[in-house]
Amino acid sequence: MTSTSTTPVTVAVDVNGADLGPAEVARGAALAQGVRVILFGPAAEIGPVPSHVSVVDAPVSIAKDPDPARAVRRTPDASIVRAVAAVKDGDAQALVSGGSTGAALAASLFGFKRVPGVHRPALAIIIPVPGKPFLLLDAGANVEVRPEMLVQFAHMGAAFMEAVHGVSAPRVALLANGTEPNKGTEIIVGAHSALASSAGLNFVGNVEGFAIGSGEADVIVADGFTGNVALKVMEGTSAALLGAVRSAAMSSWRSKVGGLLLKPALRGLRGEIDPEEQGGAVLLGLRHVGVVPHGSFGARGFTRAIEVAARSVREDVAGRTYARLAEAGALRTTASEAVASLPDES
Amino acid sequence: MTSTSTTPVTVAVDVNGADLGPAEVARGAALAQGVRVILFGPAAEIGPVPSHVSVVDAPVSIAKDPDPARAVRRTPDASIVRAVAAVKDGDAQALVSGGSTGAALAASLFGFKRVPGVHRPALAIIIPVPGKPFLLLDAGANVEVRPEMLVQFAHMGAAFMEAVHGVSAPRVALLANGTEPNKGTEIIVGAHSALASSAGLNFVGNVEGFAIGSGEADVIVADGFTGNVALKVMEGTSAALLGAVRSAAMSSWRSKVGGLLLKPALRGLRGEIDPEEQGGAVLLGLRHVGVVPHGSFGARGFTRAIEVAARSVREDVAGRTYARLAEAGALRTTASEAVASLPDES
Repeated sequence: MTSTSTTPVTVAVDVNGADLGPAEVARGAALAQGVRVILFGPAAEIGPVPSHVSVVDAPVSIAKDPDPARAVRRTPDASIVRAVAAVKDGDAQALVSGGSTGAALAASLFGFKRVPGVHRPALAIIIPVPGKPFLLLDAGANVEVRPEMLVQFAHMGAAFMEAVHGVSAPRVALLANGTEPNKGTEIIVGAHSALASSAGLNFVGNVEGFAIGSGEADVIVADGFTGNVALKVMEGTSAALLGAVRSAAMSSWRSKVGGLLLKPALRGLRGEIDPEEQGGAVLLGLRHVGVVPHGSFGARGFTRAIEVAARSVREDVAGRTYARLAEAGALRTTASEAVASLPDES
Repeated sequence: MTSTSTTPVTVAVDVNGADLGPAEVARGAALAQGVRVILFGPAAEIGPVPSHVSVVDAPVSIAKDPDPARAVRRTPDASIVRAVAAVKDGDAQALVSGGSTGAALAASLFGFKRVPGVHRPALAIIIPVPGKPFLLLDAGANVEVRPEMLVQFAHMGAAFMEAVHGVSAPRVALLANGTEPNKGTEIIVGAHSALASSAGLNFVGNVEGFAIGSGEADVIVADGFTGNVALKVMEGTSAALLGAVRSAAMSSWRSKVGGLLLKPALRGLRGEIDPEEQGGAVLLGLRHVGVVPHGSFGARGFTRAIEVAARSVREDVAGRTYARLAEAGALRTTASEAVASLPDES
């Protein structure tokens, strides 16, 4: 679970399923700095690679399978299953998947153990608000949750922001329909109270949807249903608004000239909010980190994904998550552990 | 519940709580066409009004009370309570509230009966996506829901879009974390199946958050928790993005000139997505419609709110909602009705 800085980190990358093809993923791997990469996919489509990259021929893809969980169990030679196995067996220390989030999730859940005491892993994603980025989790791995799972997500997200983004004492908030502690469903109200009393957590309370862009939290915790809806509403709203601005800029000669003059400045903004820069979503709570770039990402997005994965290993996200949960007394207790912790009768 | 077109519609308006003050609300009322208005608030702050507007001196305000439900019960002379009573007693046919949504909700729930067979009223709001507006409900009145409530929300929203916005056979969608029928919480999966088989409903399936701006549905149904988060995420994302575009336009002389040239076209866009144009949120499922403008609205927003309220009365939104629910067999059955419908034993 830990790694010293002298050991070079190796990242296993499934190249199947990326929209721009395996060669584009390989170009991304070639550009990744200070890390070894093993690519799993159709070797014939990958071509020559530099010395820090190796290729395992794994042409079978389940990236588009409508039932990823079943496909993972039935297809041991699928590239994602083999990439996960390489991490499990110690040939690599983290995973990057070019295929569907569903396949990456299913393969990781099936192949990697959880951080001891973690109820459920969660999918976390950096929302690149200009100057005020934050981590949203769960973005869709757990549709039904319990308050104790949301507390764990909070610690998982905080550990990631500390380790990978260098944020000290990350401010953690709970996504709800009001800032008052009694707002939300029974589960959200229960989670608020549990978060407020969780040791080692810089909990700043509930935030509403307005918090997108306000910079008031570094980590926003949600159940996977609400988190997924919120993430896609952000993307949908951004697309609709930028599309409308573009149309407005095409509506007259005057505005066309204005749009051209504004273009370089807007390109800077576009770069700042570019999701490729973040490398994709990160699966937290397992003993190995998995990074899931969006299928549409180009080489740069995959370079960043590999770098985030490597940094997660070097900074020991899994170990820090465990330490935080243990300190907060938020580890899951199994039935046998609960029995063992009972006072001795003799 | 119904009204003939020869009877002029009267709308009761609570002017307390509006950010710009009672006089601004009164200016909005003065501009409303083809409707009578009774203003409830501090008469001294309202000033002279035209002949279609009358004023009831009701200076007591609970618009900022942190516990609106309690305030409503304890303050019979509050302006919102008196406005609701005027509707209840037949002096007016619909409500517009300038105060907090919480106070308007509490007073309406307390004072108005439900449409017969309706489980719970819902808060609906038109999302003004350029060229593709849609109605989102519930936007926050019901944090915990059951599938049969979501089915009723679908019919309530469809009735409103038909009656007030002239959309025939409105396309209704369910907000979820995936388009597949099995995506979402147990309640969402149950609602999908119930919506798919509900008579008289043009159900187009699940939509994801991306649907903001896609124009694929006229009505999007959600539980009040998710709907509220989605609504505020839209607002937060729009504000963050428009703020970033503004900053980009100020970043150099070149872009400042571009921004100035683009301004008229963007002003048009700003008008199209201006929430004041929609009049505010609408409380559906009660025998009288209540419209809740945002506290920040100016005169025009209140004019539109009064017009939406009047149109809801003229087009009989409540009656159409009942007719739809009856046709679909989606009316709530009380215990006594259930007993009465049992086969006769004799």
